[in-house]
Amino acid sequence: MGKVLNYGMVGGGPGAFIGDAHRKAIGLDGKARIVAGCFSRSFENTFAMGEALGIEKERLYKNYGEMAAKEAGREDGMDFVVIVTTNYAHYEACRAFLKAGIPVVCEKPLTVTLEQALELEKLANEKKLLFMVTYVYSGHVTAMNIREIIAAGEIGQVRTVMGEYPQGWLAFEDIKGNKQGEWRTDPAQSGNTNALGDIGTHIENTVYRMTGLKIKRLLARMDKVVPGRTLDDNSTVMLEFENGATGVYWASQIAIGHDNGLRIRIYGSKGSISWFQEQPEVFHMAKQDGSLLEIHRGHGAIKQAAAKYTRLPSGHTEGWFEAMGNFYSNYIDCLNAQRNGVFTEEMIEYPTVVDGVDGVRFIEACLKSSANGNVWVDF
Amino acid sequence: MGKVLNYGMVGGGPGAFIGDAHRKAIGLDGKARIVAGCFSRSFENTFAMGEALGIEKERLYKNYGEMAAKEAGREDGMDFVVIVTTNYAHYEACRAFLKAGIPVVCEKPLTVTLEQALELEKLANEKKLLFMVTYVYSGHVTAMNIREIIAAGEIGQVRTVMGEYPQGWLAFEDIKGNKQGEWRTDPAQSGNTNALGDIGTHIENTVYRMTGLKIKRLLARMDKVVPGRTLDDNSTVMLEFENGATGVYWASQIAIGHDNGLRIRIYGSKGSISWFQEQPEVFHMAKQDGSLLEIHRGHGAIKQAAAKYTRLPSGHTEGWFEAMGNFYSNYIDCLNAQRNGVFTEEMIEYPTVVDGVDGVRFIEACLKSSANGNVWVDF
Amino acid sequence: MGKVLNYGMVGGGPGAFIGDAHRKAIGLDGKARIVAGCFSRSFENTFAMGEALGIEKERLYKNYGEMAAKEAGREDGMDFVVIVTTNYAHYEACRAFLKAGIPVVCEKPLTVTLEQALELEKLANEKKLLFMVTYVYSGHVTAMNIREIIAAGEIGQVRTVMGEYPQGWLAFEDIKGNKQGEWRTDPAQSGNTNALGDIGTHIENTVYRMTGLKIKRLLARMDKVVPGRTLDDNSTVMLEFENGATGVYWASQIAIGHDNGLRIRIYGSKGSISWFQEQPEVFHMAKQDGSLLEIHRGHGAIKQAAAKYTRLPSGHTEGWFEAMGNFYSNYIDCLNAQRNGVFTEEMIEYPTVVDGVDGVRFIEACLKSSANGNVWVDF
Amino acid sequence: MGKVLNYGMVGGGPGAFIGDAHRKAIGLDGKARIVAGCFSRSFENTFAMGEALGIEKERLYKNYGEMAAKEAGREDGMDFVVIVTTNYAHYEACRAFLKAGIPVVCEKPLTVTLEQALELEKLANEKKLLFMVTYVYSGHVTAMNIREIIAAGEIGQVRTVMGEYPQGWLAFEDIKGNKQGEWRTDPAQSGNTNALGDIGTHIENTVYRMTGLKIKRLLARMDKVVPGRTLDDNSTVMLEFENGATGVYWASQIAIGHDNGLRIRIYGSKGSISWFQEQPEVFHMAKQDGSLLEIHRGHGAIKQAAAKYTRLPSGHTEGWFEAMGNFYSNYIDCLNAQRNGVFTEEMIEYPTVVDGVDGVRFIEACLKSSANGNVWVDF
Repeated sequence: MGKVLNYGMVGGGPGAFIGDAHRKAIGLDGKARIVAGCFSRSFENTFAMGEALGIEKERLYKNYGEMAAKEAGREDGMDFVVIVTTNYAHYEACRAFLKAGIPVVCEKPLTVTLEQALELEKLANEKKLLFMVTYVYSGHVTAMNIREIIAAGEIGQVRTVMGEYPQGWLAFEDIKGNKQGEWRTDPAQSGNTNALGDIGTHIENTVYRMTGLKIKRLLARMDKVVPGRTLDDNSTVMLEFENGATGVYWASQIAIGHDNGLRIRIYGSKGSISWFQEQPEVFHMAKQDGSLLEIHRGHGAIKQAAAKYTRLPSGHTEGWFEAMGNFYSNYIDCLNAQRNGVFTEEMIEYPTVVDGVDGVRFIEACLKSSANGNVWVDF
Repeated sequence: MGKVLNYGMVGGGPGAFIGDAHRKAIGLDGKARIVAGCFSRSFENTFAMGEALGIEKERLYKNYGEMAAKEAGREDGMDFVVIVTTNYAHYEACRAFLKAGIPVVCEKPLTVTLEQALELEKLANEKKLLFMVTYVYSGHVTAMNIREIIAAGEIGQVRTVMGEYPQGWLAFEDIKGNKQGEWRTDPAQSGNTNALGDIGTHIENTVYRMTGLKIKRLLARMDKVVPGRTLDDNSTVMLEFENGATGVYWASQIAIGHDNGLRIRIYGSKGSISWFQEQPEVFHMAKQDGSLLEIHRGHGAIKQAAAKYTRLPSGHTEGWFEAMGNFYSNYIDCLNAQRNGVFTEEMIEYPTVVDGVDGVRFIEACLKSSANGNVWVDF
Repeated sequence: MGKVLNYGMVGGGPGAFIGDAHRKAIGLDGKARIVAGCFSRSFENTFAMGEALGIEKERLYKNYGEMAAKEAGREDGMDFVVIVTTNYAHYEACRAFLKAGIPVVCEKPLTVTLEQALELEKLANEKKLLFMVTYVYSGHVTAMNIREIIAAGEIGQVRTVMGEYPQGWLAFEDIKGNKQGEWRTDPAQSGNTNALGDIGTHIENTVYRMTGLKIKRLLARMDKVVPGRTLDDNSTVMLEFENGATGVYWASQIAIGHDNGLRIRIYGSKGSISWFQEQPEVFHMAKQDGSLLEIHRGHGAIKQAAAKYTRLPSGHTEGWFEAMGNFYSNYIDCLNAQRNGVFTEEMIEYPTVVDGVDGVRFIEACLKSSANGNVWVDF
Repeated sequence: MGKVLNYGMVGGGPGAFIGDAHRKAIGLDGKARIVAGCFSRSFENTFAMGEALGIEKERLYKNYGEMAAKEAGREDGMDFVVIVTTNYAHYEACRAFLKAGIPVVCEKPLTVTLEQALELEKLANEKKLLFMVTYVYSGHVTAMNIREIIAAGEIGQVRTVMGEYPQGWLAFEDIKGNKQGEWRTDPAQSGNTNALGDIGTHIENTVYRMTGLKIKRLLARMDKVVPGRTLDDNSTVMLEFENGATGVYWASQIAIGHDNGLRIRIYGSKGSISWFQEQPEVFHMAKQDGSLLEIHRGHGAIKQAAAKYTRLPSGHTEGWFEAMGNFYSNYIDCLNAQRNGVFTEEMIEYPTVVDGVDGVRFIEACLKSSANGNVWVDF
């Protein structure tokens, strides 16, 4: 099982959703325990959260600079940090911990500009620090299985990919009182994109992780549909990949009736695959001979590289926490392997800083295409 | 019930699929009987088919010119003609019967060029002849019901439309022996488009009939994916409608796993609708209050304008023939009304020559956009 | 194609649902034309209906006795009769036409007592007259395909069968104005069972046609659930088949949310099959190796004996009329073969008087078991 | 949040599935930490597991008697025990901890005989010790929501319930090497029932928790289908409830194609509900007005009593661990409330020893009915 590691968290204070979700996902497998935190800009909040989590008072910090420095100096210092602040703060927080020699897990989007992302990538590489960016969806066992199936050539060469992520929660003009909605539609907090940056990047990353395809160029249209919105809430992208395949992505927050409808359909020369995030325990595969298959997470046909993450027999559902937990499990195993001197790059199955960089690059290319009248932009 | 009418057919000889399908759809309700035909360029074939159908020998014709002239001259001449020839022959056949004063039903695409289509439209208007173009899919009762729901404002203003028609039957290089496949991929028989013209136009028409939205401009990409193809087999289109709504259409013949996967999703300011051609007995609706509804063809909630076409109680499935039959039923009722002097334009619920013209216009605009590097083209 | 035959109809007057449905199903393929009728006890109604259908006046009859006698005496007499009267009248009408030497198609349930059914069976056999009982559901191509798959041993030996037919339309106390509901819940018109006799027998027949299994004994519970009902509206049956397999059937008219939810699930030693009447274009199959398949009507894998009934490519839906039409198509082919002296029993693929007899036997056994406190009753 | 509690575990050694699953479910929310254990009859195994879990050596015990005694004597003794041994050992282990005054969580089935179960119930009541029996499925938020909907009368009076739990994993004769299969089909380890006891009881409990209906009498048939089996592998039960409603339950391990297909359909006088364990994030509801609704876990319409257990927004799936975690969350909250003197019975939302007793009673009644030729047996 490896040693139970210790981790710290930046962000994730009282009432914060995503920090709590990370803690739960880690708690599920119990491979790491939280020992330090700087959960909020308000130390009062950090203190309250730390107490609830049973963290020693001396390991609750006023800012992440102090946290990075002090934890790096402790003999029993934390083994990795989880950064779940607002997007704008990612860059500096990541940099601080990397510079202190502490491995980093960071929420997506990695940074607000491509330059920042590339700098973090460079820093992580120089320091040989493992860096995970938590694009959670491809952590589902079925998503991993699809990756293996495609890599094994079972659907032949990928020819076209249809990706979509429709949501309906921002379809209405009045979003007062909807905290998540308020900050996401505010350029001052969200940057220069909303739908495309928040959920479109999930399409981009999930397709990349399933297919391994690199984008060559794209043409994007980013619309502000709901009266009063100043950021895109309905965006579509045409893509060409380096292998000649094409794709269409659609990210929307005005699609009434959808919750988190991330759906990826991949068509190859020998077969096709369809995967839907809201039903992550199954996927569908069509084969050259015309057969239509429903494949469940735990069935015998599943590839070993994916099946090893299974915790429950098929038919007892695993979900979002398990997907996130799978990546943490692999990340912690890699850290343990590194600690034991047996780590190799091939062990990495989680999304890394490279995924994070590509996500930011995707956003920048789409913004450029859309601003120039929906023209093709090289990636 | 109105008088049982008589009809003739051009095309639809032995082994022809679509002509037989029209005859079955008409036979279902028995509102018209076939009495004349020019089923093939070979009179031998026409004769054999006529005999099997029990048609009098003197009403089997060597060519449609003769047929139009002679039937127009008979006191008991046919009440309308059904044209189900190859696409290239539509224009001249339609024109011949219109000139002879005989109402026309023609398969889609109406013609090969926009000029031809506009000429037919003009001719039909001048002669006040009822002209149906058989875009069959919106004949499903559920499709008609959606039209009523949207017209009634129940999903508010339409904001975006996602339309797709994936098929997988032409995904493979070797299509020898597949007669349908051979002619469709042959520019000499199919013209300058395959996927977009054959099935993309069904998306265009179905969306139009459901929403009433007129296209303002579009940006298309038409790809030849399977090695050896000389016509598009995977095409995507971005659209803007006159009311400001947007859309994305995808027509593909390389999407392994799909039969005739026409799916229309319409998102409005107050709700959304999803309809799938392969399950035409139901559709799904999401409402402003968050409720997700499955609505069946025959249920109480269905609008009267759609429900009147129902032949069976909900749960006993109606399908493609019934959809086609619905349009024939309405077309024949209109002819009878015209004959009885009680016809008004509002009675028309079938797709007319206007739908036919727009289909050809859609193809031409897409070809132009695609040829010019995927740029916006006004409609 | 064979000669286009002529048929007559008893019952099916103005406003009658099932007679009209039979005419439409026959009209779809055009293999027979209606030429005679006794559509109602009121000759006025018969006359009106006959006129609308274009039947010669002299072939409209006041009663079926006259019809049987006169048509039998004509040189161009009808080739078969379709009996779609109320259930109580089936027996005498069938007998009259059989005695007159005219082949019979009769709606289910064949008769009201087992003795009557057995007498009709004997008469038909003696006269060598083809006799179809229109249990429509197994006429779907997918249902026929399942029959072939099971006969070929692809799911091994059948072990257990779960059959259900839930409806919700009689769940409410107040059914005034619901004509169908009023007569079905009235013992004077419906006999001694409602749910079990009307829809339970469809489970019995569909399972029989798919599996070929003969019932050995059964244990039934027939409940009157809705206050005021005097006939069963929710019935369940445990069964044993002669091969040792077991089954559970459930027929209900109080299951709010269901239209015509006939669902058959068959579990064998090597695989299983699931079929749902409301989605008759597909069925699902699970195989010994764990694979889960969705099989469409028109795909390559379908058995030839079923595929030959297909009229449209897969993905263009066929429904209830086509299922009914398939049986008529086979029945008329058999009549033509008989006429041409090439008929053999193996050609029969429609439900015969044997199916009709078993349906009545099933009802009687269930009534006996239920009346005696839900005990096992031999079949 | 309440104090983080300490717990111990009996059973759940290396390789044991269910013990690990309980630990993960508790770890998810982090409301309790494992501090003691007797994981195996082999102390070597207990020691290995304890070390992996970071438990102090002195709190790893050779047997549960020692564990109960020593933990009861510690000032920092564990707050509750989780018993996940083989079924036969439940009774004595539960009794030991209850007698020591330690609250108990026990896997189902609670005991092997009804007498044992009743004794445990009595003991728990006398000692006022909170006792949870982990029937996990009704812990899903949707299942809780259904409970609230039915209690609120939204589907009227329950009239009939169809419950089923098909599995396919024991459909084949050769189960060598399938450890779970070997012990479950062995009377020496499983007792006198397999399918009915293992999974049929889950139907019984889930229906009870959703509807609150008490069984009045039942009629069961328990079959041994696969050659060589000595315990039932396909069982069906007819039921009557005290309110007059009826039901049919089906539990099978020979239903090829099913994983853990627990499906509950509840039909009331005003509507119906359908819930499927393998898709626990949604359920379907049909209403009196004919509308068919799909209701998601996190939507606005969900009842507060259920919604409070939600950890993620709708569309990000929760599964089996979350369902189990919900019950642990409530159980721990109740323990904390008891500790703080604010506990009331109404706070209990987890299945208690009463559920455990009814499960054993259900098995005994079914065995009796089946042994006596499928006759009605009072509950």
